[in-house]
Amino acid sequence: MARFFVAPEELNGPQILLTGENAQHARVLRLKAGEEVLACDGQGMECLCTVESVSAGEVILGVLERRSSRNEAAVKVSIYMAFPKADKLEHVIQKATELGAYEIVAFPSGRCISRPDDKSLKKKLERWQKIAASAAEQSGRGVIPEVIALPSFTAALERAGKADKALMFYENEHATTLRMALESGSFETVSLLTGPEGGLEEKEVEQARNAGLQVCTLGSRILRCETAPLCALSAVMYAAGEF
Amino acid sequence: MARFFVAPEELNGPQILLTGENAQHARVLRLKAGEEVLACDGQGMECLCTVESVSAGEVILGVLERRSSRNEAAVKVSIYMAFPKADKLEHVIQKATELGAYEIVAFPSGRCISRPDDKSLKKKLERWQKIAASAAEQSGRGVIPEVIALPSFTAALERAGKADKALMFYENEHATTLRMALESGSFETVSLLTGPEGGLEEKEVEQARNAGLQVCTLGSRILRCETAPLCALSAVMYAAGEF
Repeated sequence: MARFFVAPEELNGPQILLTGENAQHARVLRLKAGEEVLACDGQGMECLCTVESVSAGEVILGVLERRSSRNEAAVKVSIYMAFPKADKLEHVIQKATELGAYEIVAFPSGRCISRPDDKSLKKKLERWQKIAASAAEQSGRGVIPEVIALPSFTAALERAGKADKALMFYENEHATTLRMALESGSFETVSLLTGPEGGLEEKEVEQARNAGLQVCTLGSRILRCETAPLCALSAVMYAAGEF
Repeated sequence: MARFFVAPEELNGPQILLTGENAQHARVLRLKAGEEVLACDGQGMECLCTVESVSAGEVILGVLERRSSRNEAAVKVSIYMAFPKADKLEHVIQKATELGAYEIVAFPSGRCISRPDDKSLKKKLERWQKIAASAAEQSGRGVIPEVIALPSFTAALERAGKADKALMFYENEHATTLRMALESGSFETVSLLTGPEGGLEEKEVEQARNAGLQVCTLGSRILRCETAPLCALSAVMYAAGEF
């Protein structure tokens, strides 16, 4: 079923008006009166609708049912990723959204080569948020994960540490597995923190431990920086009973 | 530790000679006499070596210890992927190799848009195998997964069906989860079969069931064709106790 993201207040009335990009998209899909579609607020609420009329630049939907989104994971998993080079973060945002991440948080760490300044960061965040919205639509999600940039590694640790399971992955950790970390008690929120291309520095790992993060391995093979968060996210979703 | 793939028979003597691309790579790494490196046959055996001498186009290694590779998963997971468009298969080969896949098998299915002919396939297979070798080296593996192309969907089902767990993922399956499939008995070999961009046809799913494959869901979100096999592989590695 086609799915359109609209402003949350749009879901309150008996009709919903699609305009702009949504109307264009409806045209591409060749929507016709009588078809069923979903209008989502991107925050977990959605309306099952029927198309009432289609005209140039405007589609009117009649609301059949207002309900909670059905495709959201019960567990809220936040991806914390040190700024990688080039388009790797875009890749992770797209894939993590498909895989059901709750939010994606980028931050600088010691060995980051990419360090966007404030001006370029603003533009990038807009672009990243659009990638998340597009992936949310394609994968049938009712929530668009927020993409957040934090100013420092310390800020990332502090924020990540608030989750029920705050986990950091480090290639020199061999004793503690992700499974051990997940099986030691229940959880509703999870933070998964991974490093940049060059990895995390040993002192950063110590700092993370001191901030209350648990340091885990993702196995004996060295994963690229864009592979590690998606591997961990897939495993957490599996462990949480999503599939 | 740097790692070089050599022909299996090279591992039998007291010394190993690196030439060609391996010698070039050693030069890029600025290897010096006395350093330890690994020479791997790409099939699961490796020699821990010390660099004896470095000269133009030639590096001589002295073998310290011959042993089984340490970074291979106990479970052998085969990825069966319907030919996707463009460079998506390359992406899956690289990532599946990092994540520890045993082999990657591509095949045509009803809705495949990409259908390489025999001539282009031969070239592509060479390229795909190089991508697997490069990813195996970077991730520290001792086995280079073989990349195989099969001529038909039927051939893929027949081959995939021989694994202890032969699983197909389908977005319209909601009852059987990957977890149910994995928890119903032990396994040493797993086949994970996924469709192309347009998905698998219903009659193909029936055909797979008849061939003995179990049809499972990867959750309620629709995954892109290049995301699904990597998500499933990550979850199987987690379930098998790899991390």
